Amino acid sequence: MTFPLLSCTHRSRRTPFSNKVEAAGVKAYTVYNHMLLPTVFSSLEEDYTHLKTAVQVWDVSCQRQVEIVGSDALSLLQMVTPRNLSKMPDDQCYYIPMVNKDGFMLNDPVAIKLDENRFWVSVADNDAKFYFMGLANGLKMNVNVFEPDVSPLSVQGPKSIELIERVFGEEIAKTKFFKYQKIIFSGTEMVIARSGWSHQECYEIYLNGSSYGESLWDELFKAGKDLDVRAGCPNLIERVESGLLSFGNDVTLEHTPYEAGLAKYFDKDISSEFLGCENLKNKRNPSRIIKPIQIEGEPIKPITYWTKIIDENSLFAGNISSAAWSPEFKSNVAIGMVEKDFWDSEKNLYIILDNKEKRKIFLKENFWS
Amino acid sequence: MTFPLLSCTHRSRRTPFSNKVEAAGVKAYTVYNHMLLPTVFSSLEEDYTHLKTAVQVWDVSCQRQVEIVGSDALSLLQMVTPRNLSKMPDDQCYYIPMVNKDGFMLNDPVAIKLDENRFWVSVADNDAKFYFMGLANGLKMNVNVFEPDVSPLSVQGPKSIELIERVFGEEIAKTKFFKYQKIIFSGTEMVIARSGWSHQECYEIYLNGSSYGESLWDELFKAGKDLDVRAGCPNLIERVESGLLSFGNDVTLEHTPYEAGLAKYFDKDISSEFLGCENLKNKRNPSRIIKPIQIEGEPIKPITYWTKIIDENSLFAGNISSAAWSPEFKSNVAIGMVEKDFWDSEKNLYIILDNKEKRKIFLKENFWS
Repeated sequence: MTFPLLSCTHRSRRTPFSNKVEAAGVKAYTVYNHMLLPTVFSSLEEDYTHLKTAVQVWDVSCQRQVEIVGSDALSLLQMVTPRNLSKMPDDQCYYIPMVNKDGFMLNDPVAIKLDENRFWVSVADNDAKFYFMGLANGLKMNVNVFEPDVSPLSVQGPKSIELIERVFGEEIAKTKFFKYQKIIFSGTEMVIARSGWSHQECYEIYLNGSSYGESLWDELFKAGKDLDVRAGCPNLIERVESGLLSFGNDVTLEHTPYEAGLAKYFDKDISSEFLGCENLKNKRNPSRIIKPIQIEGEPIKPITYWTKIIDENSLFAGNISSAAWSPEFKSNVAIGMVEKDFWDSEKNLYIILDNKEKRKIFLKENFWS
Repeated sequence: MTFPLLSCTHRSRRTPFSNKVEAAGVKAYTVYNHMLLPTVFSSLEEDYTHLKTAVQVWDVSCQRQVEIVGSDALSLLQMVTPRNLSKMPDDQCYYIPMVNKDGFMLNDPVAIKLDENRFWVSVADNDAKFYFMGLANGLKMNVNVFEPDVSPLSVQGPKSIELIERVFGEEIAKTKFFKYQKIIFSGTEMVIARSGWSHQECYEIYLNGSSYGESLWDELFKAGKDLDVRAGCPNLIERVESGLLSFGNDVTLEHTPYEAGLAKYFDKDISSEFLGCENLKNKRNPSRIIKPIQIEGEPIKPITYWTKIIDENSLFAGNISSAAWSPEFKSNVAIGMVEKDFWDSEKNLYIILDNKEKRKIFLKENFWS
């Protein structure tokens, strides 16, 4: 969470909402899928408190879509994920761990079925589309893979239901969790899903066409004025409390979906059409796994780079990948990958803060919220 | 070239040289291949002048290598590029435009042949490795594709020959352009190539193992003290003068290699094993092409986002993608993609600076240096 300056070029693309985000006082960005993603508006703590009590609009355009269209679309999608897609309902958002032939994670996207032969895959921070393209090009599949002009805008927080109802009506606001519906905005059909990267009430509007971005933003802010609607962004504290993984931070290409704790999405029914089916089965007993972790003592500065976990003999026990002080739980909350030998161990575990301060940590059974 | 703050997390990886780069006073970063790349030390102009007169050490770790190893390695590589690799010498660096089945650019890497069945592909800013993985996984090729712990450090500027001679000896300093040799540093074999992202004298040391990074850095700075060696980075002004394309900025996934002006690398001998062979041949007559462009008048602020080119009737004529004031050529130098109708046109062409100032531009025959 250090803050050097960022040089911006076309490679770090602006979004349909960047002008609005900057007018709203964004303080820092990260680059995600070659695009600007806001990270702070007031402060990490103030953004957090507001998110949990009011309603925020998040520019998450960087959740880029990979559109897969053609008669082989479903086959291609099934080749990259162990999750069985054969019963995927039309209006359901599917979290599909994307895994290579050797059983290692490639990405952790959410997929939407637009029709029988057309899907959007909302990817975490890497060019997963090239894996689809490589498969499709090599196997001469009847499918087109590309990034459409679609930029998600998320509405987050307890008052998001009220705001969505005001703008899009009661039926849309009642969309069930991880389901989606279609709306018409400015005469254009767009997808709206009950989903988002927090454990608050949330929606994601898949802006269909960059040119409508600013008017969609304005409409939400006009309708939500008395709800104290503000510009916001994914919040480190809230997402660690909720155990929402950040691909590239908590989980990388070197991890298996078992290590990432994602087995519940597929383990009982690994699709035989998935390319890594046999190799993945051999990884069912991981020697390290993602855990919720509490860090003892006073509030820490946010941890966003891997910090080693050691035991009392300085033996390596894992890494904390994300951590921050939680104002609500009055505790330092963390996510880390812990080696098997230490899962039920009686041994004391520690991290070293700023290369000097030794802090005790505790593995927890469950995330905070 | 605007400078908001950058939130850093594990996703924007630090390099083996980041501590040294920060001690040397880096002022701004960009994120490139999920890694920090310095962009300014003193100022764009001061960095430029020093680069052209002395010697700089550049942390270009972000030029990540895709290692392709196995009996199908050469076949896999040939599937992604029209450039004929059958006569690729063992000690040669090969610039290989990477192109998909439909004839569009995927990346513009430099490849090195380490032995018959082992290559490094030094990729521009995207996860091109996933395209290799997709092809290899789909076609069950006998090949392993991964990112090794290799981080290039570049030595740049007229005095780089002297510095390399001091540290690695005369034979290494004499390496011919786009050839490579092997050196031993700290007991470890590393590749050193006569290449780099400027038109100055330059070398790239492919650091083999992150743990040796700081001692390599120190060795170069110790040996180059009286040469005024400084930390530097790719310089916008110098690379525009030289016509070095930045993938993602000047050329994107939407362009063909003909539009990018890269036909000279393959056009006479497109490999029939390249997957897009037939489709690419149909793109031989592009309707837009990359051009050197001069912008009239006083020094401009650097242009790093696409800026529309128009004619006197406000008709769209292309985009300038990169531009800056050149102290040496006393002119504003630029790179842009220009529509065919305007290549030899008598019409006046313009750009609008900051949405208000109309400036005349001229298409040039050649880049400045």
